Amino acid sequence: MKIAILGGTGSIGEGFALRWAEKHDILLCSREIDKAVKTAEEYTSTLLGKGLLCCGITGCKNETAIGDADLVVLSVPYGGVVPLLKSLKPFFKDQIVISLVVPMKKNKWFEYTPPKQGSAALEIKDHLPESVKVISAYHNISAKKLANLDLNLDYDVVVCGDDEDAKKTVMELTREIKNLHPLDGGGLSSSYMVESLTPFLINLSIRNGLSDLGVKFV
Amino acid sequence: MKIAILGGTGSIGEGFALRWAEKHDILLCSREIDKAVKTAEEYTSTLLGKGLLCCGITGCKNETAIGDADLVVLSVPYGGVVPLLKSLKPFFKDQIVISLVVPMKKNKWFEYTPPKQGSAALEIKDHLPESVKVISAYHNISAKKLANLDLNLDYDVVVCGDDEDAKKTVMELTREIKNLHPLDGGGLSSSYMVESLTPFLINLSIRNGLSDLGVKFV
Repeated sequence: MKIAILGGTGSIGEGFALRWAEKHDILLCSREIDKAVKTAEEYTSTLLGKGLLCCGITGCKNETAIGDADLVVLSVPYGGVVPLLKSLKPFFKDQIVISLVVPMKKNKWFEYTPPKQGSAALEIKDHLPESVKVISAYHNISAKKLANLDLNLDYDVVVCGDDEDAKKTVMELTREIKNLHPLDGGGLSSSYMVESLTPFLINLSIRNGLSDLGVKFV
Repeated sequence: MKIAILGGTGSIGEGFALRWAEKHDILLCSREIDKAVKTAEEYTSTLLGKGLLCCGITGCKNETAIGDADLVVLSVPYGGVVPLLKSLKPFFKDQIVISLVVPMKKNKWFEYTPPKQGSAALEIKDHLPESVKVISAYHNISAKKLANLDLNLDYDVVVCGDDEDAKKTVMELTREIKNLHPLDGGGLSSSYMVESLTPFLINLSIRNGLSDLGVKFV
């Protein structure tokens, strides 16, 4: 599968590139092509240095990667996502788009601030062609832990989406990352629940002197 | 500590009575005194049959128990809680009140339906004297698992409340139940988050063929 990662040069994008490159072609996206190419080389070195397989991580501009990809991971901050999608809409056809986006602000504590659609995932769906299949997942995975290949993750990942086949594909991709356990979270209308868990987890971490909290349903 | 459990003859009340009776006096409440007394005897037999200590589980009417208690557990369905508190308000002074209450309805799936205050806990606070300290906790514990003393629970319990001392007391009570781990969830204004997890967990259970899901933050 060809997986484009928007925001692939920073934060949680790194972890997905490293963890999926064994089985998939990764198109690492950035608005700055030089940065994307350089980061792709770094990630490739990391994998080869660990003796891991690597189908290929290629640095790309957003436009090129989206047109070429079967699946697009949106790992960009909420503030930039709508303008980004407006400029990139013509390059989308019928890809699966995974939204990791969480609208939140910090007052004294972090607070979930959903748009009028009810969640970032539903707003993102509004800004893409109808044939694109939006899936909401991975909001509650620590970027740091995901990028650390020596770490055994042990999280549940709730996957929401209205297209059952696309949801199954993302659940399968989740299983490919050792000890991530996908759970069917229902339709995209349930995305607010997993999105709102993110500021809640950050607040819990701060208040209780913990860090990088994820979630398990037991 | 004297702990009154409203709704103590059913559902999750049983688990708390059984698990706290070793160290605390349990006032098991029901509107029907006969049922309360009979159930208190049954719970006592269960504990003694297992060779466990039991400070005492006494069947009481709601009014008597509340006046006598240091801490009141509200384990009643959302639909009945406001009328119940209206009738019982004169018996409250400065107790700690733990709300386990979750306002939800079932359409195709379960849905969180908070009152205008934003959460059941905040609504409950509105219906009690100001000197009462409302704490929100235990929404995501399986009643069946809590009542099964042979079972090793392994859950995190998020505790929300505006009175720091009362919150500490409830966190300490949580630690007394083996392998329940309390986490400070902040003020009562955060209660909507733990309340809304309940219908979400039920839906996750149904969709994924699981049962009695609780939560751990890892």
